[in-house]
Amino acid sequence: MNGPTVSVSLNSPQFLARNSFISSSKLKTDTSRRSLGICKCVSSPPAEQTAYTTKVSRNANMAKLQAGYLFPEIARRRAAHLLKYPDAQVISLGIGDTTEPIPDIITNAMAERACALSTVEGYSGYGAEQGEKKLRSAIASAYYKDLGIDESDIFVSDGAKCDISRLQVLFGSSVKIAVQDPSYPAYVDSSVIMGQTGLYENQRYSNIEYMRCDPQNGFFPDLSLISNADVIFFCSPNNPTGSAATREQLTQLVQYAKKTGSIIVYDSAYAMYISDDCPRSIFEIDGAKEVAIETSSFSKYAGFTGVRLGWTVVPKELLFSDGFPVA
Amino acid sequence: MNGPTVSVSLNSPQFLARNSFISSSKLKTDTSRRSLGICKCVSSPPAEQTAYTTKVSRNANMAKLQAGYLFPEIARRRAAHLLKYPDAQVISLGIGDTTEPIPDIITNAMAERACALSTVEGYSGYGAEQGEKKLRSAIASAYYKDLGIDESDIFVSDGAKCDISRLQVLFGSSVKIAVQDPSYPAYVDSSVIMGQTGLYENQRYSNIEYMRCDPQNGFFPDLSLISNADVIFFCSPNNPTGSAATREQLTQLVQYAKKTGSIIVYDSAYAMYISDDCPRSIFEIDGAKEVAIETSSFSKYAGFTGVRLGWTVVPKELLFSDGFPVA
Repeated sequence: MNGPTVSVSLNSPQFLARNSFISSSKLKTDTSRRSLGICKCVSSPPAEQTAYTTKVSRNANMAKLQAGYLFPEIARRRAAHLLKYPDAQVISLGIGDTTEPIPDIITNAMAERACALSTVEGYSGYGAEQGEKKLRSAIASAYYKDLGIDESDIFVSDGAKCDISRLQVLFGSSVKIAVQDPSYPAYVDSSVIMGQTGLYENQRYSNIEYMRCDPQNGFFPDLSLISNADVIFFCSPNNPTGSAATREQLTQLVQYAKKTGSIIVYDSAYAMYISDDCPRSIFEIDGAKEVAIETSSFSKYAGFTGVRLGWTVVPKELLFSDGFPVA
Repeated sequence: MNGPTVSVSLNSPQFLARNSFISSSKLKTDTSRRSLGICKCVSSPPAEQTAYTTKVSRNANMAKLQAGYLFPEIARRRAAHLLKYPDAQVISLGIGDTTEPIPDIITNAMAERACALSTVEGYSGYGAEQGEKKLRSAIASAYYKDLGIDESDIFVSDGAKCDISRLQVLFGSSVKIAVQDPSYPAYVDSSVIMGQTGLYENQRYSNIEYMRCDPQNGFFPDLSLISNADVIFFCSPNNPTGSAATREQLTQLVQYAKKTGSIIVYDSAYAMYISDDCPRSIFEIDGAKEVAIETSSFSKYAGFTGVRLGWTVVPKELLFSDGFPVA
């Protein structure tokens, strides 16, 4: 497995699985429609034009998605660069995946639990909706010790990416989000799908705040440039740049959210790669529990992207404007 | 495990897991707010009133949900009935779950696959987004043989309930749905969350077509009463009534959808309980591939609700009004 600056994943197949395949078939169909256009002069219409269609309109938000463009564009730029500099050692920031077998202490436990389902004592039907209490307690004590997060604040899931989309469903279509630029596409794509944005023009969606993060600002955004944002997605160490925010920077972020009333969705999927004093959790910052959600995953921690296991922390202190708890 | 008329589940915890816990905490919070109201006359406000709140508004669609009401209401009616008829043998149509251990031919395969993840040959990271081809082929040949459905039409998932919500995200907020009445609450709740409905009044949401199914109409709705619906959710055998639609009835349903341009979402989660000539799949009906999606699950087939494995069939013949494929 590689370090965060070389293999953090820009995207991966599980994000809104239904939408991933929609995007790929969209690409395919756009092509076929283009060729239909070319055939316009033919007297009898092609078979496709006479096919039965329902009267249900396609979701306009889905139609805004540009998901098919990212990876072909990366491939195009990579090829162009290699043509110009044939000896360049290109570091791919495309889909990052794990490649090493999982330690058997994990898989043996998985196998044991599977086999237990064939016994009267070990069988269980529907699981606890928030995740097993034992696992939630273990996550709370292993990752949030002394931070005031307990098992009731933790929600186990099939991965941080899936939870990001679920959080967007929870927030609904009326919020405006801010994202680091560059950032992991899942924040933006889920925002588009939920109808929070306008159309895609000049490589940006309208009604999203793109917070520039580059070498000039040490990969930490100038928060004073945000005109307004209800929800700020912040990933540290950042995917794809690998930059981890310092304690001072995260304190600034939490204070900004507190001042503006925004909610931070903090993605700590790569936190295990931090080896210096940078915080591994947003909840290391004073007051974060009133303004932040943290989403994380074992995909990179334990190297099992395909197993799908993650969690999200929604502190009971986090409240909507009407005082209603977010969790 | 019981037959469909006695234990089909009205609801279960995995449906939009995030929303389930939202509902339960909502109930809890409503109660605490009510007691705040009682305390109005106290001079200093209770501690809760001074808590910091973000400026993010609660999603108005989430606020419409009545999810906390169903099961307490079932419990209330059950208790009232038993008070009146103490010797009654009440059949609970509340949450239905499986109770018997899973055959070890299944769990051994699960254990074997888990252990293989610790080997170089057996390790895999992110899986195929549509599900493993081998499994999709097996589903196609086992359940859709000679029906013109192939593996490319099948999308493997963590269960039919989860797929119902994903389908609603795909359809978006502008569609109007129709549901059998009574029906499994997931269709309605996901519609509310997506913003397809109005408020809940007189035990109904506005902008949903409730298709009455009762002994008078043989549990099959009078389709001529539907004023308009983009998406018709139809569950057979029905949850909770257990009634399975006949071939003639389903032919009528498909012809109706074809006439009106609607899309049918056919829930066949209980199809394995059918022992007579009633179709087990909507795709046994001529022309269904152009108007229907079918969602199903191993939860009841194989009796492992907690394992989470289902699939949805989206035929390539199913097109939106602009000719764009739904899949």
